[in-house]
Amino acid sequence: MGKYEILLVNDDGFMSKGLPLTFRALQEVGEVTAIVPEVPKSGGGHSVTLHKPIFVRELQIYGITTYVINGTPVDAVHVAKSILGLDPDLVVSGVNVGENTSMQNILYSGTVEAAIEAGLFGYPSLAFSADVGSDTAFEDPKYAALVRKVVIAASAYVLKHGWFKGVDCISINIPSTHRTKGAVMAKAQRLRFIQNYERRIDPRGREYYWLVGKRITESETDSYYLSQGYVVITPLRSDLTHPSLSGCIELPEEIYDFIEYLNKILTNYRI
Amino acid sequence: MGKYEILLVNDDGFMSKGLPLTFRALQEVGEVTAIVPEVPKSGGGHSVTLHKPIFVRELQIYGITTYVINGTPVDAVHVAKSILGLDPDLVVSGVNVGENTSMQNILYSGTVEAAIEAGLFGYPSLAFSADVGSDTAFEDPKYAALVRKVVIAASAYVLKHGWFKGVDCISINIPSTHRTKGAVMAKAQRLRFIQNYERRIDPRGREYYWLVGKRITESETDSYYLSQGYVVITPLRSDLTHPSLSGCIELPEEIYDFIEYLNKILTNYRI
Repeated sequence: MGKYEILLVNDDGFMSKGLPLTFRALQEVGEVTAIVPEVPKSGGGHSVTLHKPIFVRELQIYGITTYVINGTPVDAVHVAKSILGLDPDLVVSGVNVGENTSMQNILYSGTVEAAIEAGLFGYPSLAFSADVGSDTAFEDPKYAALVRKVVIAASAYVLKHGWFKGVDCISINIPSTHRTKGAVMAKAQRLRFIQNYERRIDPRGREYYWLVGKRITESETDSYYLSQGYVVITPLRSDLTHPSLSGCIELPEEIYDFIEYLNKILTNYRI
Repeated sequence: MGKYEILLVNDDGFMSKGLPLTFRALQEVGEVTAIVPEVPKSGGGHSVTLHKPIFVRELQIYGITTYVINGTPVDAVHVAKSILGLDPDLVVSGVNVGENTSMQNILYSGTVEAAIEAGLFGYPSLAFSADVGSDTAFEDPKYAALVRKVVIAASAYVLKHGWFKGVDCISINIPSTHRTKGAVMAKAQRLRFIQNYERRIDPRGREYYWLVGKRITESETDSYYLSQGYVVITPLRSDLTHPSLSGCIELPEEIYDFIEYLNKILTNYRI
Protein backbone atom coordinates (compact mmCIF):
# COMPACT_ATOMS: atom_id res chain seq x y z
CA MET A 1 0.00 0.00 0.00
CA GLY A 2 2.49 2.62 1.18
CA LYS A 3 0.40 5.63 0.34
CA TYR A 4 -0.81 6.31 3.87
CA GLU A 5 1.19 8.32 6.41
CA ILE A 6 1.16 6.83 9.91
CA LEU A 7 2.54 8.39 13.07
CA LEU A 8 3.62 5.86 15.69
CA VAL A 9 4.12 6.93 19.33
CA ASN A 10 4.41 5.01 22.59
CA ASP A 11 4.95 5.55 26.30
CA ASP A 12 7.39 2.71 26.89
CA GLY A 13 10.28 4.48 25.18
CA PHE A 14 12.67 3.49 22.42
CA MET A 15 13.95 0.36 24.12
CA SER A 16 10.60 -1.43 24.27
CA LYS A 17 10.34 -4.52 22.07
CA GLY A 18 6.80 -3.36 21.35
CA LEU A 19 8.27 -0.61 19.16
CA PRO A 20 9.83 -2.65 16.32
CA LEU A 21 6.91 -5.09 16.40
CA THR A 22 4.36 -2.29 15.94
CA PHE A 23 6.56 -0.40 13.49
CA ARG A 24 6.97 -3.40 11.20
CA ALA A 25 3.28 -4.29 11.39
CA LEU A 26 2.34 -0.75 10.38
CA GLN A 27 4.81 -0.84 7.50
CA GLU A 28 2.39 -3.32 5.89
CA VAL A 29 -0.19 -0.54 5.85
CA GLY A 30 1.69 2.68 5.14
CA GLU A 31 4.71 4.93 5.67
CA VAL A 32 5.58 4.94 9.36
CA THR A 33 7.28 7.66 11.42
CA ALA A 34 8.03 6.72 15.04
CA ILE A 35 8.45 9.37 17.76
CA VAL A 36 8.94 8.05 21.27
CA PRO A 37 10.14 9.27 24.68
CA GLU A 38 13.75 8.64 25.69
CA VAL A 39 12.55 7.54 29.13
CA PRO A 40 9.55 5.23 29.70
CA LYS A 41 6.49 7.32 30.66
CA SER A 42 4.05 4.73 32.01
CA GLY A 43 1.52 6.39 34.31
CA GLY A 44 2.35 9.73 32.72
CA GLY A 45 -1.26 10.34 31.73
CA HIS A 46 -1.86 13.43 29.63
CA SER A 47 1.44 15.18 30.54
CA VAL A 48 2.64 17.86 28.16
CA THR A 49 6.06 19.52 28.46
CA LEU A 50 5.74 23.27 29.01
CA HIS A 51 8.58 24.23 31.34
CA LYS A 52 11.59 22.84 29.55
CA PRO A 53 12.57 22.67 25.91
CA ILE A 54 12.30 19.57 23.74
CA PHE A 55 15.30 17.99 22.02
CA VAL A 56 14.69 15.62 19.10
CA ARG A 57 17.22 12.97 18.13
CA GLU A 58 17.15 10.47 15.29
CA LEU A 59 18.11 6.97 16.33
CA GLN A 60 18.57 3.67 14.53
CA ILE A 61 17.32 0.94 16.84
CA TYR A 62 16.20 -2.62 16.09
CA GLY A 63 16.86 -1.69 12.46
CA ILE A 64 14.26 1.05 12.35
CA THR A 65 14.56 4.84 12.36
CA THR A 66 13.05 6.43 15.45
CA TYR A 67 12.81 10.02 16.63
CA VAL A 68 13.55 10.12 20.35
CA ILE A 69 12.39 13.08 22.45
CA ASN A 70 13.04 14.16 26.05
CA GLY A 71 9.30 14.48 26.45
CA THR A 72 6.05 12.61 26.81
CA PRO A 73 3.82 10.63 24.42
CA VAL A 74 1.52 13.69 24.19
CA ASP A 75 4.53 15.82 23.23
CA ALA A 76 5.28 13.31 20.46
CA VAL A 77 2.01 14.27 18.74
CA HIS A 78 3.06 17.95 18.82
CA VAL A 79 6.57 17.18 17.63
CA ALA A 80 5.15 15.26 14.66
CA LYS A 81 2.86 18.13 13.74
CA SER A 82 4.98 21.19 14.41
CA ILE A 83 8.61 20.08 14.19
CA LEU A 84 8.60 17.25 11.64
CA GLY A 85 5.71 18.81 9.72
CA LEU A 86 3.72 15.56 9.47
CA ASP A 87 0.01 15.44 8.76
CA PRO A 88 -0.65 11.73 9.35
CA ASP A 89 -3.67 9.82 8.07
CA LEU A 90 -3.58 7.78 11.27
CA VAL A 91 -1.91 8.02 14.67
CA VAL A 92 -1.08 4.75 16.42
CA SER A 93 -0.05 4.69 20.07
CA GLY A 94 1.55 1.55 21.53
CA VAL A 95 1.58 -1.37 21.55
CA ASN A 96 1.75 -0.71 25.29
CA VAL A 97 3.30 -3.16 27.71
CA GLY A 98 0.32 -3.63 30.04
CA GLU A 99 -3.41 -3.44 29.45
CA ASN A 100 -5.35 -0.19 29.71
CA THR A 101 -8.91 -1.17 30.52
CA SER A 102 -11.06 0.88 32.97
CA MET A 103 -11.54 4.63 33.24
CA GLN A 104 -8.77 4.65 35.83
CA ASN A 105 -6.19 3.04 33.53
CA ILE A 106 -7.28 5.23 30.62
CA LEU A 107 -6.62 8.35 32.69
CA TYR A 108 -3.24 7.06 33.93
CA SER A 109 -2.03 5.76 30.58
CA GLY A 110 0.48 7.71 28.55
CA THR A 111 -0.33 5.44 25.60
CA VAL A 112 -4.06 6.11 25.57
CA GLU A 113 -3.63 9.80 26.39
CA ALA A 114 -1.34 10.32 23.39
CA ALA A 115 -4.13 8.92 21.22
CA ILE A 116 -6.61 11.20 23.03
CA GLU A 117 -4.37 14.18 22.18
CA ALA A 118 -4.17 13.11 18.55
CA GLY A 119 -7.98 12.84 18.57
CA LEU A 120 -8.23 16.35 20.03
CA PHE A 121 -6.46 17.60 16.90
CA GLY A 122 -8.76 15.61 14.64
CA TYR A 123 -6.45 12.75 13.69
CA PRO A 124 -7.94 9.25 13.55
CA SER A 125 -6.12 7.48 16.35
CA LEU A 126 -5.80 3.99 17.76
CA ALA A 127 -4.24 3.07 21.09
CA PHE A 128 -3.10 -0.55 21.45
CA SER A 129 -2.31 -2.13 24.82
CA ALA A 130 -1.32 -5.72 25.53
CA ASP A 131 -2.12 -7.50 28.78
CA VAL A 132 1.49 -8.57 29.36
CA GLY A 133 3.83 -7.87 32.24
CA SER A 134 6.99 -7.26 30.22
CA ASP A 135 8.01 -6.55 26.64
CA THR A 136 9.69 -9.95 26.41
CA ALA A 137 6.16 -11.29 25.77
CA PHE A 138 6.51 -9.77 22.28
CA GLU A 139 9.38 -12.19 21.58
CA ASP A 140 7.00 -15.17 21.64
CA PRO A 141 6.30 -15.69 17.92
CA LYS A 142 2.68 -16.76 18.48
CA TYR A 143 1.90 -13.78 20.64
CA ALA A 144 3.76 -11.41 18.31
CA ALA A 145 1.69 -12.80 15.43
CA LEU A 146 -1.54 -11.99 17.26
CA VAL A 147 -0.40 -8.44 18.05
CA ARG A 148 0.65 -7.94 14.43
CA LYS A 149 -2.68 -9.23 13.21
CA VAL A 150 -4.67 -6.88 15.43
CA VAL A 151 -2.54 -3.83 14.61
CA ILE A 152 -2.62 -4.46 10.86
CA ALA A 153 -6.33 -5.32 10.71
CA ALA A 154 -7.49 -2.32 12.77
CA SER A 155 -5.17 0.19 11.09
CA ALA A 156 -5.84 -0.98 7.53
CA TYR A 157 -9.60 -0.98 8.16
CA VAL A 158 -9.62 2.59 9.44
CA LEU A 159 -7.41 3.83 6.62
CA LYS A 160 -9.57 2.12 4.02
CA HIS A 161 -13.06 2.81 5.41
CA GLY A 162 -12.53 6.16 7.13
CA TRP A 163 -12.98 7.33 10.68
CA PHE A 164 -16.02 7.26 12.99
CA LYS A 165 -17.99 10.47 13.52
CA GLY A 166 -18.06 11.68 17.11
CA VAL A 167 -15.31 9.29 18.20
CA ASP A 168 -11.93 10.90 18.96
CA CYS A 169 -9.87 7.78 19.49
CA ILE A 170 -10.27 4.03 19.92
CA SER A 171 -8.54 2.06 22.62
CA ILE A 172 -7.85 -1.59 21.78
CA ASN A 173 -6.75 -4.02 24.46
CA ILE A 174 -5.16 -7.32 23.50
CA PRO A 175 -5.47 -10.26 25.92
CA SER A 176 -2.52 -12.06 27.49
CA THR A 177 -2.98 -15.20 25.39
CA HIS A 178 -2.59 -15.61 21.65
CA ARG A 179 -5.72 -17.79 21.69
CA THR A 180 -8.24 -14.96 21.50
CA LYS A 181 -11.99 -15.55 21.47
CA GLY A 182 -12.60 -12.69 19.05
CA ALA A 183 -13.28 -8.96 19.32
CA VAL A 184 -15.94 -7.21 21.41
CA MET A 185 -16.83 -3.61 22.19
CA ALA A 186 -17.16 -3.05 25.93
CA LYS A 187 -17.66 -0.14 28.28
CA ALA A 188 -14.88 0.77 30.67
CA GLN A 189 -15.28 -0.24 34.28
CA ARG A 190 -14.60 2.61 36.70
CA LEU A 191 -11.77 1.53 39.00
CA ARG A 192 -9.20 -1.08 38.03
CA PHE A 193 -7.18 -1.25 41.24
CA ILE A 194 -7.53 -1.39 44.95
CA GLN A 195 -4.47 0.71 45.61
CA ASN A 196 -2.25 1.09 48.58
CA TYR A 197 1.22 2.27 49.47
CA GLU A 198 3.82 -0.25 50.58
CA ARG A 199 5.95 1.37 53.29
CA ARG A 200 9.70 0.83 53.43
CA ILE A 201 12.71 2.36 55.18
CA ASP A 202 15.68 3.52 53.11
CA PRO A 203 19.33 2.92 54.16
CA ARG A 204 19.33 6.39 55.77
CA GLY A 205 16.31 5.65 57.94
CA ARG A 206 13.76 7.63 55.91
CA GLU A 207 10.29 6.26 55.16
CA TYR A 208 9.27 5.87 51.55
CA TYR A 209 6.24 4.44 49.78
CA TRP A 210 5.60 2.40 46.63
CA LEU A 211 2.15 2.57 45.07
CA VAL A 212 0.83 -0.95 44.59
CA GLY A 213 -2.52 -2.08 43.24
CA LYS A 214 -4.62 -5.23 43.27
CA ARG A 215 -6.66 -5.66 40.09
CA ILE A 216 -10.43 -5.75 40.29
CA THR A 217 -12.68 -7.03 37.49
CA GLU A 218 -16.40 -6.30 37.19
CA SER A 219 -18.62 -8.40 34.93
CA GLU A 220 -19.59 -7.19 31.44
CA THR A 221 -16.81 -4.58 31.31
CA ASP A 222 -13.69 -4.06 29.23
CA SER A 223 -11.55 -5.60 31.98
CA TYR A 224 -13.84 -8.62 32.18
CA TYR A 225 -13.83 -9.41 28.46
CA LEU A 226 -10.07 -8.91 28.33
CA SER A 227 -9.61 -11.43 31.15
CA GLN A 228 -11.82 -13.84 29.15
CA GLY A 229 -9.47 -13.68 26.16
CA TYR A 230 -11.24 -11.15 23.94
CA VAL A 231 -9.67 -8.27 22.08
CA VAL A 232 -11.60 -5.36 23.62
CA ILE A 233 -12.49 -2.20 21.73
CA THR A 234 -13.50 0.98 23.57
CA PRO A 235 -14.28 4.21 21.69
CA LEU A 236 -13.19 7.35 23.53
CA ARG A 237 -13.72 11.10 23.46
CA SER A 238 -11.00 13.71 24.10
CA ASP A 239 -13.28 15.19 26.69
CA LEU A 240 -13.83 15.04 30.43
CA THR A 241 -16.80 17.42 30.57
CA HIS A 242 -20.17 16.08 31.69
CA PRO A 243 -22.00 14.49 28.72
CA SER A 244 -24.99 16.81 29.11
CA LEU A 245 -22.62 19.66 28.21
CA SER A 246 -20.40 17.93 25.67
CA GLY A 247 -23.26 16.28 23.79
CA CYS A 248 -25.04 12.98 24.40
CA ILE A 249 -24.28 11.54 20.99
CA GLU A 250 -24.76 7.98 19.81
CA LEU A 251 -22.04 5.83 18.28
CA PRO A 252 -22.11 5.76 14.48
CA GLU A 253 -23.32 2.51 12.88
CA GLU A 254 -19.97 2.14 11.10
CA ILE A 255 -18.19 1.25 14.31
CA TYR A 256 -20.20 -1.98 14.56
CA ASP A 257 -18.93 -2.99 11.12
CA PHE A 258 -15.40 -2.35 12.35
CA ILE A 259 -15.90 -4.59 15.40
CA GLU A 260 -17.50 -7.29 13.25
CA TYR A 261 -14.59 -7.16 10.83
CA LEU A 262 -12.03 -7.50 13.64
CA ASN A 263 -14.04 -10.31 15.19
CA LYS A 264 -14.12 -12.18 11.91
CA ILE A 265 -10.39 -11.74 11.36
CA LEU A 266 -9.65 -12.97 14.86
CA THR A 267 -12.01 -15.92 15.04
CA ASN A 268 -10.89 -17.24 11.66
CA TYR A 269 -7.34 -16.82 12.79
CA ARG A 270 -5.33 -19.91 13.71
CA ILE A 271 -1.55 -19.97 14.02
CA MET B 1 -17.63 25.25 61.48
CA GLY B 2 -14.55 23.05 61.68
CA LYS B 3 -16.42 19.76 61.51
CA TYR B 4 -15.66 19.07 57.86
CA GLU B 5 -12.42 17.48 56.68
CA ILE B 6 -10.99 19.08 53.53
CA LEU B 7 -8.04 17.86 51.48
CA LEU B 8 -6.21 20.61 49.61
CA VAL B 9 -3.89 19.77 46.71
CA ASN B 10 -2.35 21.83 43.91
CA ASP B 11 -0.03 21.51 40.94
CA ASP B 12 1.98 24.69 41.48
CA GLY B 13 3.90 23.27 44.44
CA PHE B 14 4.53 24.50 47.96
CA MET B 15 6.00 27.85 46.98
CA SER B 16 2.90 29.15 45.17
CA LYS B 17 1.18 32.07 46.87
CA GLY B 18 -2.06 30.41 45.84
CA LEU B 19 -1.44 27.81 48.57
CA PRO B 20 -1.74 29.95 51.73
CA LEU B 21 -4.60 31.94 50.18
CA THR B 22 -6.63 28.80 49.46
CA PHE B 23 -5.62 27.14 52.73
CA ARG B 24 -6.80 30.09 54.83
CA ALA B 25 -10.03 30.46 52.87
CA LEU B 26 -10.82 26.76 53.43
CA GLN B 27 -10.08 27.09 57.14
CA GLU B 28 -13.30 29.14 57.31
CA VAL B 29 -15.14 26.05 56.20
CA GLY B 30 -13.40 23.06 57.81
CA GLU B 31 -10.21 21.31 58.89
CA VAL B 32 -7.69 21.56 56.07
CA THR B 33 -4.85 19.19 55.17
CA ALA B 34 -2.60 20.36 52.32
CA ILE B 35 -0.56 17.91 50.23
CA VAL B 36 1.37 19.41 47.35
CA PRO B 37 4.22 18.50 44.97
CA GLU B 38 7.75 19.68 45.79
CA VAL B 39 8.20 20.73 42.15
CA PRO B 40 5.54 22.58 40.12
CA LYS B 41 3.64 20.13 37.92
CA SER B 42 1.81 22.40 35.46
CA GLY B 43 0.96 20.50 32.31
CA GLY B 44 1.40 17.26 34.21
CA GLY B 45 -2.11 16.09 33.37
CA HIS B 46 -3.21 12.88 35.03
CA SER B 47 0.33 11.65 35.87
CA VAL B 48 0.62 9.10 38.63
CA THR B 49 3.95 7.93 40.07
CA LEU B 50 4.48 4.20 39.55
CA HIS B 51 8.18 3.73 38.91
CA LYS B 52 9.75 5.48 41.87
CA PRO B 53 8.83 5.63 45.54
CA ILE B 54 7.11 8.59 47.20
CA PHE B 55 8.65 10.52 50.08
CA VAL B 56 6.39 12.66 52.28
CA ARG B 57 7.75 15.62 54.26
CA GLU B 58 5.97 17.94 56.63
CA LEU B 59 6.81 21.59 56.06
CA GLN B 60 5.87 24.87 57.72
CA ILE B 61 5.49 27.47 55.01
CA TYR B 62 3.65 30.78 54.99
CA GLY B 63 2.62 29.84 58.54
CA ILE B 64 0.71 26.74 57.46
CA THR B 65 1.50 23.05 57.74
CA THR B 66 1.92 21.39 54.36
CA TYR B 67 2.79 17.85 53.33
CA VAL B 68 5.22 17.98 50.44
CA ILE B 69 5.65 14.97 48.14
CA ASN B 70 8.08 14.14 45.34
CA GLY B 71 5.08 13.30 43.20
CA THR B 72 2.16 14.71 41.27
CA PRO B 73 -1.19 16.25 42.23
CA VAL B 74 -2.86 12.90 41.42
CA ASP B 75 -0.40 11.19 43.79
CA ALA B 76 -1.44 13.67 46.50
CA VAL B 77 -4.96 12.20 46.48
CA HIS B 78 -3.49 8.71 47.02
CA VAL B 79 -1.12 9.92 49.73
CA ALA B 80 -4.05 11.51 51.59
CA LYS B 81 -6.07 8.31 51.40
CA SER B 82 -3.48 5.61 51.93
CA ILE B 83 -0.59 7.21 53.84
CA LEU B 84 -2.21 9.92 55.98
CA GLY B 85 -5.42 7.89 56.32
CA LEU B 86 -7.72 10.81 55.47
CA ASP B 87 -11.30 10.38 54.32
CA PRO B 88 -12.12 13.97 53.33
CA ASP B 89 -15.63 15.38 52.93
CA LEU B 90 -14.31 17.53 50.10
CA VAL B 91 -11.19 17.66 47.94
CA VAL B 92 -10.10 21.08 46.68
CA SER B 93 -7.46 21.42 43.97
CA GLY B 94 -5.83 24.81 43.34
CA VAL B 95 -6.20 27.70 43.22
CA ASN B 96 -4.17 27.22 40.06
CA VAL B 97 -2.00 29.95 38.58
CA GLY B 98 -3.54 30.07 35.11
CA GLU B 99 -7.03 29.33 33.84
CA ASN B 100 -8.13 25.85 32.81
CA THR B 101 -10.96 26.35 30.35
CA SER B 102 -11.37 24.11 27.24
CA MET B 103 -11.10 20.34 26.90
CA GLN B 104 -7.47 20.81 25.97
CA ASN B 105 -6.56 22.67 29.16
CA ILE B 106 -8.59 20.26 31.27
CA LEU B 107 -6.59 17.33 29.87
CA TYR B 108 -3.25 19.13 30.37
CA SER B 109 -3.99 20.48 33.83
CA GLY B 110 -2.51 18.83 36.90
CA THR B 111 -4.95 20.86 39.00
CA VAL B 112 -8.10 19.67 37.26
CA GLU B 113 -6.80 16.10 36.89
CA ALA B 114 -6.18 15.81 40.65
CA ALA B 115 -9.85 16.70 41.16
CA ILE B 116 -10.80 14.17 38.45
CA GLU B 117 -8.84 11.51 40.39
CA ALA B 118 -10.57 12.46 43.64
CA GLY B 119 -13.89 12.19 41.78
CA LEU B 120 -12.91 8.74 40.49
CA PHE B 121 -12.70 7.63 44.14
CA GLY B 122 -16.05 9.19 44.95
CA TYR B 123 -14.92 12.30 46.79
CA PRO B 124 -16.78 15.55 46.08
CA SER B 125 -14.12 17.67 44.44
CA LEU B 126 -13.65 21.21 43.22
CA ALA B 127 -10.83 22.47 41.00
CA PHE B 128 -10.18 26.22 41.11
CA SER B 129 -8.11 28.02 38.49
CA ALA B 130 -7.43 31.75 38.21
CA ASP B 131 -6.82 33.51 34.90
CA VAL B 132 -3.57 35.09 36.08
CA GLY B 133 -0.04 34.84 34.70
CA SER B 134 1.81 34.60 38.01
CA ASP B 135 1.07 33.92 41.66
CA THR B 136 1.93 37.51 42.56
CA ALA B 137 -1.61 38.33 41.39
CA PHE B 138 -2.78 36.73 44.66
CA GLU B 139 -0.98 39.49 46.58
CA ASP B 140 -3.43 42.11 45.29
CA PRO B 141 -5.90 42.39 48.20
CA LYS B 142 -8.92 42.96 45.94
CA TYR B 143 -8.13 39.98 43.76
CA ALA B 144 -7.31 37.82 46.79
CA ALA B 145 -10.68 38.79 48.27
CA LEU B 146 -12.48 37.60 45.14
CA VAL B 147 -10.61 34.28 45.12
CA ARG B 148 -11.36 33.81 48.82
CA LYS B 149 -15.03 34.56 48.25
CA VAL B 150 -15.34 32.03 45.41
CA VAL B 151 -13.45 29.28 47.26
CA ILE B 152 -15.41 29.76 50.49
CA ALA B 153 -18.81 30.07 48.81
CA ALA B 154 -18.42 27.02 46.56
CA SER B 155 -16.84 24.80 49.23
CA ALA B 156 -19.30 25.75 51.99
CA TYR B 157 -22.26 25.22 49.64
CA VAL B 158 -21.14 21.73 48.63
CA LEU B 159 -20.40 20.70 52.20
CA LYS B 160 -23.77 21.99 53.41
CA HIS B 161 -26.03 20.89 50.51
CA GLY B 162 -24.26 17.71 49.39
CA TRP B 163 -22.79 16.62 46.11
CA PHE B 164 -24.32 16.34 42.61
CA LYS B 165 -25.33 12.91 41.33
CA GLY B 166 -23.50 11.83 38.17
CA VAL B 167 -20.92 14.63 38.45
CA ASP B 168 -17.42 13.54 39.47
CA CYS B 169 -15.82 16.94 39.88
CA ILE B 170 -16.49 20.61 39.19
CA SER B 171 -13.96 22.92 37.57
CA ILE B 172 -14.30 26.58 38.52
CA ASN B 173 -12.40 29.24 36.59
CA ILE B 174 -11.95 32.70 38.09
CA PRO B 175 -11.48 35.65 35.71
CA SER B 176 -8.43 37.91 35.69
CA THR B 177 -10.28 40.86 37.20
CA HIS B 178 -11.79 41.22 40.67
CA ARG B 179 -14.81 42.92 39.04
CA THR B 180 -16.69 39.76 38.12
CA LYS B 181 -20.01 39.80 36.33
CA GLY B 182 -21.30 36.78 38.23
CA ALA B 183 -21.23 33.01 37.79
CA VAL B 184 -22.29 30.96 34.77
CA MET B 185 -22.16 27.32 33.79
CA ALA B 186 -20.58 26.86 30.37
CA LYS B 187 -19.46 24.00 28.17
CA ALA B 188 -15.78 23.58 27.42
CA GLN B 189 -14.55 24.65 24.02
CA ARG B 190 -12.40 22.02 22.34
CA LEU B 191 -9.00 23.57 21.63
CA ARG B 192 -7.61 26.48 23.62
CA PHE B 193 -4.35 27.04 21.77
CA ILE B 194 -2.89 27.26 18.32
CA GLN B 195 0.38 25.65 19.28
CA ASN B 196 3.77 25.71 17.77
CA TYR B 197 7.38 25.08 18.68
CA GLU B 198 9.82 27.97 18.88
CA ARG B 199 13.18 26.77 17.56
CA ARG B 200 16.43 27.84 19.21
CA ILE B 201 20.08 26.80 19.18
CA ASP B 202 21.83 26.01 22.46
CA PRO B 203 25.41 27.17 23.25
CA ARG B 204 26.67 23.79 21.99
CA GLY B 205 24.99 24.16 18.62
CA ARG B 206 22.09 21.76 19.24
CA GLU B 207 18.54 22.59 18.19
CA TYR B 208 15.88 22.72 20.85
CA TYR B 209 12.20 23.64 20.89
CA TRP B 210 9.85 25.45 23.29
CA LEU B 211 6.14 24.74 23.02
CA VAL B 212 4.25 28.02 22.66
CA GLY B 213 0.53 28.61 22.21
CA LYS B 214 -1.73 31.43 21.10
CA ARG B 215 -5.06 31.43 22.87
CA ILE B 216 -8.26 31.01 20.90
CA THR B 217 -11.73 31.85 22.22
CA GLU B 218 -15.00 30.59 20.73
CA SER B 219 -18.30 32.26 21.55
CA GLU B 220 -20.63 30.81 24.22
CA THR B 221 -17.91 28.62 25.74
CA ASP B 222 -16.14 28.48 29.08
CA SER B 223 -13.18 30.40 27.64
CA TYR B 224 -15.50 33.09 26.27
CA TYR B 225 -17.39 33.71 29.51
CA LEU B 226 -14.13 33.76 31.43
CA SER B 227 -12.74 36.42 29.10
CA GLN B 228 -15.94 38.41 29.71
CA GLY B 229 -15.33 38.49 33.47
CA TYR B 230 -17.55 35.64 34.66
CA VAL B 231 -16.67 32.94 37.14
CA VAL B 232 -17.20 29.86 34.97
CA ILE B 233 -18.44 26.53 36.32
CA THR B 234 -17.96 23.32 34.33
CA PRO B 235 -19.09 19.94 35.71
CA LEU B 236 -16.81 17.05 34.74
CA ARG B 237 -16.77 13.25 34.69
CA SER B 238 -13.73 11.09 35.52
CA ASP B 239 -14.25 9.39 32.21
CA LEU B 240 -12.97 9.60 28.66
CA THR B 241 -15.14 6.84 27.21
CA HIS B 242 -17.70 7.70 24.57
CA PRO B 243 -20.93 8.93 26.23
CA SER B 244 -22.99 6.23 24.53
CA LEU B 245 -20.98 3.70 26.57
CA SER B 246 -20.51 5.64 29.79
CA GLY B 247 -24.14 6.78 29.99
CA CYS B 248 -25.86 9.82 28.50
CA ILE B 249 -27.02 11.22 31.80
CA GLU B 250 -28.52 14.62 32.47
CA LEU B 251 -27.20 17.08 35.04
CA PRO B 252 -29.09 16.99 38.34
CA GLU B 253 -31.38 19.97 39.06
CA GLU B 254 -29.40 20.76 42.21
CA ILE B 255 -26.44 22.02 40.21
CA TYR B 256 -28.50 24.94 38.91
CA ASP B 257 -29.22 25.96 42.51
CA PHE B 258 -25.47 25.90 43.13
CA ILE B 259 -24.76 28.17 40.15
CA GLU B 260 -27.58 30.52 41.17
CA TYR B 261 -26.18 30.71 44.69
CA LEU B 262 -22.67 31.53 43.45
CA ASN B 263 -24.06 34.07 41.03
CA LYS B 264 -25.98 35.78 43.82
CA ILE B 265 -22.95 35.86 46.10
CA LEU B 266 -20.80 37.34 43.32
CA THR B 267 -23.18 39.93 41.92
CA ASN B 268 -24.03 41.25 45.39
CA TYR B 269 -20.37 41.40 46.10
CA ARG B 270 -18.61 44.73 46.15
CA ILE B 271 -15.19 45.32 47.65
